[in-house]
Amino acid sequence: MRPHKLDSAKREEALPKLELQGWAHDPARDAIAKSYRFTDFAQAFGWMTKVALTAEKLDHHPEWRNVYNRVEVVLTTHDAGGLTALDLQMAERMDALAAG
Amino acid sequence: MRPHKLDSAKREEALPKLELQGWAHDPARDAIAKSYRFTDFAQAFGWMTKVALTAEKLDHHPEWRNVYNRVEVVLTTHDAGGLTALDLQMAERMDALAAG
Repeated sequence: MRPHKLDSAKREEALPKLELQGWAHDPARDAIAKSYRFTDFAQAFGWMTKVALTAEKLDHHPEWRNVYNRVEVVLTTHDAGGLTALDLQMAERMDALAAG
Repeated sequence: MRPHKLDSAKREEALPKLELQGWAHDPARDAIAKSYRFTDFAQAFGWMTKVALTAEKLDHHPEWRNVYNRVEVVLTTHDAGGLTALDLQMAERMDALAAG
């Protein structure tokens, strides 16, 4: 099933919660971005590995950049041209994996 | 031991070989960059995992960005303010892991 963009009701519910978690919405791309910081590279890459397994399971992959203990993530759904439920799922999973 | 920047003899030997392998030298940062393309995300991330183990072993970490099957890498040695033997080692290892 091709994912479709979040409607306004879903956005109004989701975006404020994401912003409280440190996500920033980029309206130009209709994407969300967050920068994670870990104690060192091993912690950062360990987290990326867990996220990668989720990405494969959902068949939904982040754009991400890693420099030592930092990982900058951008989520959007290219096929849909913007944010979909898949991005909300990924964001939630990333935060949960970073938290514990 | 603090790594030191490559001297001109070492550069003249290394840079042309790297360029043949698809690496580009950025003189402004004294860094080398390459974009790898794999068949899919699993192949790209599998390669990153192998590179990550080398990075930890050498205590020398790439700047890298992954979008699905592509990985853009930048290598330089921040402590030395430019390219060192560690970057040549990493570049060689990355190419070897991507080739086989």
